[in-house]
Amino acid sequence: MIDRRSLRWNGWGLAHQTFELGHREPEVWAWVASQLGMSSLPSRPARPLPEVELPSSRLAEADLAALAAIVGAEHVKTDRYERAFHARGKSYLDILALRAGDLGTAPDAVVYPGTAAQVQALLELCDREGVAVVPFGGGSSVVGGVNGLRRPDQRAVVTVDTTRMCRVLSLDPVSQTARVEAGVYGPELERTLQREGFTLGHYPQSFEFSTLGGWIAARGAGQQSYRYGKAEKWLVSAEVATPRGPWRSEGFPASAAGPNLTQIVAGSEGLLGIITAATVKLHRVPEVTDYRGYLFRGLEQGVDAVRAVLQEEIPVAMLRLSDGSETHFLSGFSAAQHPPGRIERIATRALAMRGYGEGRCLLLVGLEGDRESVLEAGVRARCVLERHGAQHVGRGPGRKWYSRRFMMPYMRDPMLDRGVAVETLETSARWSDLLDLYRGVGRAIRGALRDHAAGPWARPLVMCHVSHGYVDGASLYFTMVFPQKQGAEVEQWLAIKKAATDAIVAGGGTISHHHGVGSDHAPWLAREKGPVGAALLAGLKASLDPNGTLNPGKVLVP
Amino acid sequence: MIDRRSLRWNGWGLAHQTFELGHREPEVWAWVASQLGMSSLPSRPARPLPEVELPSSRLAEADLAALAAIVGAEHVKTDRYERAFHARGKSYLDILALRAGDLGTAPDAVVYPGTAAQVQALLELCDREGVAVVPFGGGSSVVGGVNGLRRPDQRAVVTVDTTRMCRVLSLDPVSQTARVEAGVYGPELERTLQREGFTLGHYPQSFEFSTLGGWIAARGAGQQSYRYGKAEKWLVSAEVATPRGPWRSEGFPASAAGPNLTQIVAGSEGLLGIITAATVKLHRVPEVTDYRGYLFRGLEQGVDAVRAVLQEEIPVAMLRLSDGSETHFLSGFSAAQHPPGRIERIATRALAMRGYGEGRCLLLVGLEGDRESVLEAGVRARCVLERHGAQHVGRGPGRKWYSRRFMMPYMRDPMLDRGVAVETLETSARWSDLLDLYRGVGRAIRGALRDHAAGPWARPLVMCHVSHGYVDGASLYFTMVFPQKQGAEVEQWLAIKKAATDAIVAGGGTISHHHGVGSDHAPWLAREKGPVGAALLAGLKASLDPNGTLNPGKVLVP
Repeated sequence: MIDRRSLRWNGWGLAHQTFELGHREPEVWAWVASQLGMSSLPSRPARPLPEVELPSSRLAEADLAALAAIVGAEHVKTDRYERAFHARGKSYLDILALRAGDLGTAPDAVVYPGTAAQVQALLELCDREGVAVVPFGGGSSVVGGVNGLRRPDQRAVVTVDTTRMCRVLSLDPVSQTARVEAGVYGPELERTLQREGFTLGHYPQSFEFSTLGGWIAARGAGQQSYRYGKAEKWLVSAEVATPRGPWRSEGFPASAAGPNLTQIVAGSEGLLGIITAATVKLHRVPEVTDYRGYLFRGLEQGVDAVRAVLQEEIPVAMLRLSDGSETHFLSGFSAAQHPPGRIERIATRALAMRGYGEGRCLLLVGLEGDRESVLEAGVRARCVLERHGAQHVGRGPGRKWYSRRFMMPYMRDPMLDRGVAVETLETSARWSDLLDLYRGVGRAIRGALRDHAAGPWARPLVMCHVSHGYVDGASLYFTMVFPQKQGAEVEQWLAIKKAATDAIVAGGGTISHHHGVGSDHAPWLAREKGPVGAALLAGLKASLDPNGTLNPGKVLVP
Repeated sequence: MIDRRSLRWNGWGLAHQTFELGHREPEVWAWVASQLGMSSLPSRPARPLPEVELPSSRLAEADLAALAAIVGAEHVKTDRYERAFHARGKSYLDILALRAGDLGTAPDAVVYPGTAAQVQALLELCDREGVAVVPFGGGSSVVGGVNGLRRPDQRAVVTVDTTRMCRVLSLDPVSQTARVEAGVYGPELERTLQREGFTLGHYPQSFEFSTLGGWIAARGAGQQSYRYGKAEKWLVSAEVATPRGPWRSEGFPASAAGPNLTQIVAGSEGLLGIITAATVKLHRVPEVTDYRGYLFRGLEQGVDAVRAVLQEEIPVAMLRLSDGSETHFLSGFSAAQHPPGRIERIATRALAMRGYGEGRCLLLVGLEGDRESVLEAGVRARCVLERHGAQHVGRGPGRKWYSRRFMMPYMRDPMLDRGVAVETLETSARWSDLLDLYRGVGRAIRGALRDHAAGPWARPLVMCHVSHGYVDGASLYFTMVFPQKQGAEVEQWLAIKKAATDAIVAGGGTISHHHGVGSDHAPWLAREKGPVGAALLAGLKASLDPNGTLNPGKVLVP
């Protein structure tokens, strides 16, 4: 587990870690300002924790003693730091609230159980006592999934932090599965598995600060999801503490014994229970990895190429195609940090003359596996890509992306310090809808950004990449960088989010490909699932949590 | 759709079709008798339909008129043939009952809706009227999934036969998906898809006489499931008529918007609604297919080899490993039909001298795809298999299996005519449990067959193959051939089935890998799902079908 004190309570990651901009930091910020139409960047520091008002805990001494009787007094926390750290997740709205010093969603206590039996006992206690329970792993939700909400009839909120439960309980090398406690963080899990020659291969951008249980609860995707699968694919069986008692879901390689209820745990976001452990499918640690870049003249060609690779079933690990705006932004950002030398400039000009200039799109292709398979897949992929107009640009872009793949979230805090917002949202749709959806959502976001601009000078950036592909479709991942509208930051963002999500729903996309529902997407869920689907979800909830103790205000809204 | 009159009401397949035994038919039967310890085969003909007593329909004229108002009078059937044909599925118990002339489970009427709206209206009518509804596709269930059961408080049973609904509604070649009505039979579906260059690739043994809706409802598996996936894998979205109204489940390439409720439809066996259409993933029609045989000296080596191929992620379509008994039986059966020539006998002796004699196990390896991939996968597979002690025996066994892959079920009827029982059961488990499970279930079946033998002379055959493999485990498919205990056929089978299923559950297997639950496996389901899982299933049922109109007596038993 990670000591909470080493983490930012109101921002990303380790408190001592920042996104390294090098000696040209001033130039980089000047470049960012120029891109956004800002003449200079304001100073907008966050409120420090000691100055922030913390609501007093609604729990009585007797309640805390009852919690302590289950987990031990040292694992019941009511101090300022713990309550603040667990007040919210890591969405833009969360960080806005925390930086402004709003701790209205701080739980009344945080408990750290050490065993599944303790989780079960905590849940039963709170269920009896009318206290809401919020399950919490790494707390990296970007959709309001871990905020300390309660219904008015619930007298308090207890957050159950699972990160003390971080052991690999068993590893079956014959079946290539492992049974793991749910509170383990990515790096610790991979260290343990890789010592035995195996990997789960689940590397979301949040990898360092998210947990196995969270990945399952939110149906997360790792960056190499094409090879290793989203959480629902590698999940074999889940162990869940529920108000109806502990449950271990079925865990067969395949079965026809009624619906696969394990699939109900994936995406349940703490509504049905608290995941205490899971059995997961493993892969052998890949012998080699190969990440490299290709350029396309436009997004349409790139999308067709990605689709062809996937539909020809070439075993890639990752395909990540940035649109023109994102390609432009990333290369500009990089150039501001490390101005290109003469040879690089000549190469760029030569590419531009061949059509890979303004509007070009970068595709990163990742391959993982044994040497021979990677070689073969690489040759096949390159043939297909070049047939679709790709220009191979070597391993440089792949290496650069790979080395920074967990660092990008660190950029948000310094940007917010300077009045610059950055947030993402994502969806997925079938190939036949994908480009229209891309255009529709982009249009909606740009429209909302115009209507809620910080000023007439503001030039927002709306970027997108296709990063998770399937035979029948792919995800779209939008990143927005824009000058904050001071004093109306929340309204500005809610307008953008609403416009984007409405456009997603209208365009045949899902409200989330891998972030989950939380409270932010809840208003759109019923439309996506339909009235019968919503009735099914309500029925599942009523079966296991009739008192509504678990994670109120998330996913299902009345 | 298939004209019901062309089908056997009390046996398998087309009435005019039989398993072709050729000019040596007497020798084949003599060989079967000798294998089973029978000095001769008795004559046990089935009762012809005209002699069988059919319970009178519980529906009044007004009821039939109400049904006719929805689907048209010509699509409401109460005649002897239709009610008998829909009385049961195709399990051994079903066929025993039908051959004995027991039509106690005949529905009171059979209706053939032509549209999803008609299905919805039928369901709402029956739900209002307290009439049980049994969804029926091809009727090939081997677990009692389509029998015309009702609760005592339901006044009648109506079977809804979906086979008029057999159109491919749309095909999206860009996303490689198709939206298809649920009542389409395998051959018609594949003809339509293949005209456009696509295939679903779902070829269960019942392919010719089972429907898309049935495959989904029972979570079926095709013989090439490793390449094309079980039903739950290729299912993108289902359209279901439910008592709560029509439902189209979410159908995104991937999503994190709560649990994937489409996965609840797979395996729902008509408990939640009637599947009227589905969107499914397609593959391109493979350019080449390559089916060939390998021999192993024993099952353990074969299992290790199969596991290695799967865990090295070699893209095979099928791996089908017969144990020693099955290999012996199949080659003996074949030799009885076509006595081996001199060269064949020499080859057999040479193989036996090298250890591939008594106890040898045949593995069939099927590859499908484009020419280059099949070639590559074939080379890789052969390397791995030979490393594990395999002897390549060429394409002959593959060709033979492929040409007869839908014919084996035709053998049961002539066997039953001669007092010989044949039935199958199946499971799946992790690799680390698989061989112990194989031994345990085999022991249980042989013990029950001993305790319930037709006589002290009886020598039953218990055979098994591994036919569906995964990275983490595989299926086991047992076939039993044994002399019937005359006058106690049902008790004999129930004892075998109970012993086998208890051993499956005790050994870590699922009660079914691809046959489903129906009524036959229902008593074991709660144990497999656990009390919380059972509560979830009950909650799902209560959400959509509070009156219990749909398929009573199946899957969930109180």
